[in-house]
Amino acid sequence: MKVYKRKNRLSAQEYIDGVLQGSRVILSRAITIVESNLESDKILAKEIIQAILPHSGNSIRIGITGVPGVGKSTFIEAFGKYLTTLNHKVAILSIDPSSQRSKGSILGDKTRMEELSNNENAYIRPSSTGETLGGVANKTGESMLLCEASGYDVILVETVGVGQSETAVHGMTDFFLLLMLSGAGDELQGIKKGIMEMADMVVINKADGDNIKNSEMARLQYQNALHIFPQPDSGWTPVVTKASSTKNTGIDAVWEQVLKYKELVDQNGYFTKNRNHQKIKWMYNNINEELKHLFYGSPEIKNKLSSLEHDVVSSQVSPVKAAQYIMEDFKKSM
Amino acid sequence: MKVYKRKNRLSAQEYIDGVLQGSRVILSRAITIVESNLESDKILAKEIIQAILPHSGNSIRIGITGVPGVGKSTFIEAFGKYLTTLNHKVAILSIDPSSQRSKGSILGDKTRMEELSNNENAYIRPSSTGETLGGVANKTGESMLLCEASGYDVILVETVGVGQSETAVHGMTDFFLLLMLSGAGDELQGIKKGIMEMADMVVINKADGDNIKNSEMARLQYQNALHIFPQPDSGWTPVVTKASSTKNTGIDAVWEQVLKYKELVDQNGYFTKNRNHQKIKWMYNNINEELKHLFYGSPEIKNKLSSLEHDVVSSQVSPVKAAQYIMEDFKKSM
Repeated sequence: MKVYKRKNRLSAQEYIDGVLQGSRVILSRAITIVESNLESDKILAKEIIQAILPHSGNSIRIGITGVPGVGKSTFIEAFGKYLTTLNHKVAILSIDPSSQRSKGSILGDKTRMEELSNNENAYIRPSSTGETLGGVANKTGESMLLCEASGYDVILVETVGVGQSETAVHGMTDFFLLLMLSGAGDELQGIKKGIMEMADMVVINKADGDNIKNSEMARLQYQNALHIFPQPDSGWTPVVTKASSTKNTGIDAVWEQVLKYKELVDQNGYFTKNRNHQKIKWMYNNINEELKHLFYGSPEIKNKLSSLEHDVVSSQVSPVKAAQYIMEDFKKSM
Repeated sequence: MKVYKRKNRLSAQEYIDGVLQGSRVILSRAITIVESNLESDKILAKEIIQAILPHSGNSIRIGITGVPGVGKSTFIEAFGKYLTTLNHKVAILSIDPSSQRSKGSILGDKTRMEELSNNENAYIRPSSTGETLGGVANKTGESMLLCEASGYDVILVETVGVGQSETAVHGMTDFFLLLMLSGAGDELQGIKKGIMEMADMVVINKADGDNIKNSEMARLQYQNALHIFPQPDSGWTPVVTKASSTKNTGIDAVWEQVLKYKELVDQNGYFTKNRNHQKIKWMYNNINEELKHLFYGSPEIKNKLSSLEHDVVSSQVSPVKAAQYIMEDFKKSM
């Protein structure tokens, strides 16, 4: 493999070649370009993504979520290591628009995944920070494409489990994994509504030592609960298992379920259908965000809205009429 | 009370006075104005809504959903009748953008609620049809305001339980009731994701005869399942009860829970907070729909989008880039 010298900036073709040839250094630098907000980098990023696009997609994308304290980093370390022993190349990305690492993003603290980060078949990339959800989702999504073009065939996309980023991760992955702890109830308060229903699999983590019996109880409880949910469009019946990331038990069973899922959705056509749907949805999400930006970004609109909000709450004007007022103003300004 | 003669069209003031004085005839005609798509009616509707707005809001708004076959119409008939015996004035509205009455909307088939429709303290209004969800939601929302201004203090908003209208109903009501049947599993396939988690209360209907034992089992199963959900923002813990609309059992218990809920949210301030939030959300929903209409309504945009969708699915262009293309075109056209 060609050795790339570090220099200030490579040509688009050098990035493209490096990514396609599996250079970790170039992959990292290409992701940095994708994450950059500089205009010149944005143009470069477009060119790189456009070129690698036909080489992307050959992977299984797994979304992983769970509240802080559930043991996401140890789980991902154990799961990622297991996958590399099966000769998979594993890329680990994260979506964390809140960007305060102390809140629980595993990837800000690489030392917690030291072994995996030294594994040549694993690529760990902390999330870009200080962004809107839409911005971070775009960047993580394009980073995922770069990783795939670079030969990574399992992509783990981590999210913190307390915000709105779960829907974004669910919208860019094939399989959605929710980590939970035994003792259902209290710690669930941190999980946002709707996340349970997105899960293709729930893993009761930290099922070890004194905790095994409680974990089995929790497993049954979740299994029963998922049973009364509507079945996902994929035709898959969500499963609940237990695992110990520190004792390394139940990790292989997670992958086994992912493979079973993959077999099902390959057979029934859902895999491709869902990927196509996700691509189109990704485009429309971008369009709708841009549209809102165009409207809500205007200082006059902002001023009017805050006074209209007041009038609506105090029932001086109806919500429908308030919307008509401001849209008329907007159309005139166009 | 003044007697209103039927004439082709009343003045705005006549509608306003009639509604505020509790005339059912005028209320019906005012709702017809609100539902109309004629430009002149829209102007009249605005004036009426604006005038009655300060008199609206004095009610408890209950959303009711469940798949066809769950017995919504008999439940609402029993529940409505019970409420009138407690001297409440009950208005029953529905959201049904699909508008095919055969699909299960109770309100298209008034004969099924014959007794209630002849009750002078109940007002039943079938939903307007053949509309977008946003359009129907606006009309149902404004009809609700008219009913409140006309003295109805319990508003039941029914939805069919298989579409997207549940979120709209949840967004305009204080308390969300999900009707289910025993024998969880099969019939749940009809309930869309996320609806379970919106429920403040689940009622296992048709708990009578041979079905009592199964209904109690279902009740326990749902109670356990709701237990592991995140608690709603209201601080309320959702409850599951069973009822028989035909035997008239368990109907009073539903109202009891609604009152308990009301007491809680009055005390913790959630009631007002949520109502204010709903008003503002209603305004923003309208703005965002208008914005999308402005964009997606353009024939050129439509053409370009269908070709872009194709290019995105076949990985010829990235979703992010596709969105940029079309937004540039749109901005130029402005």
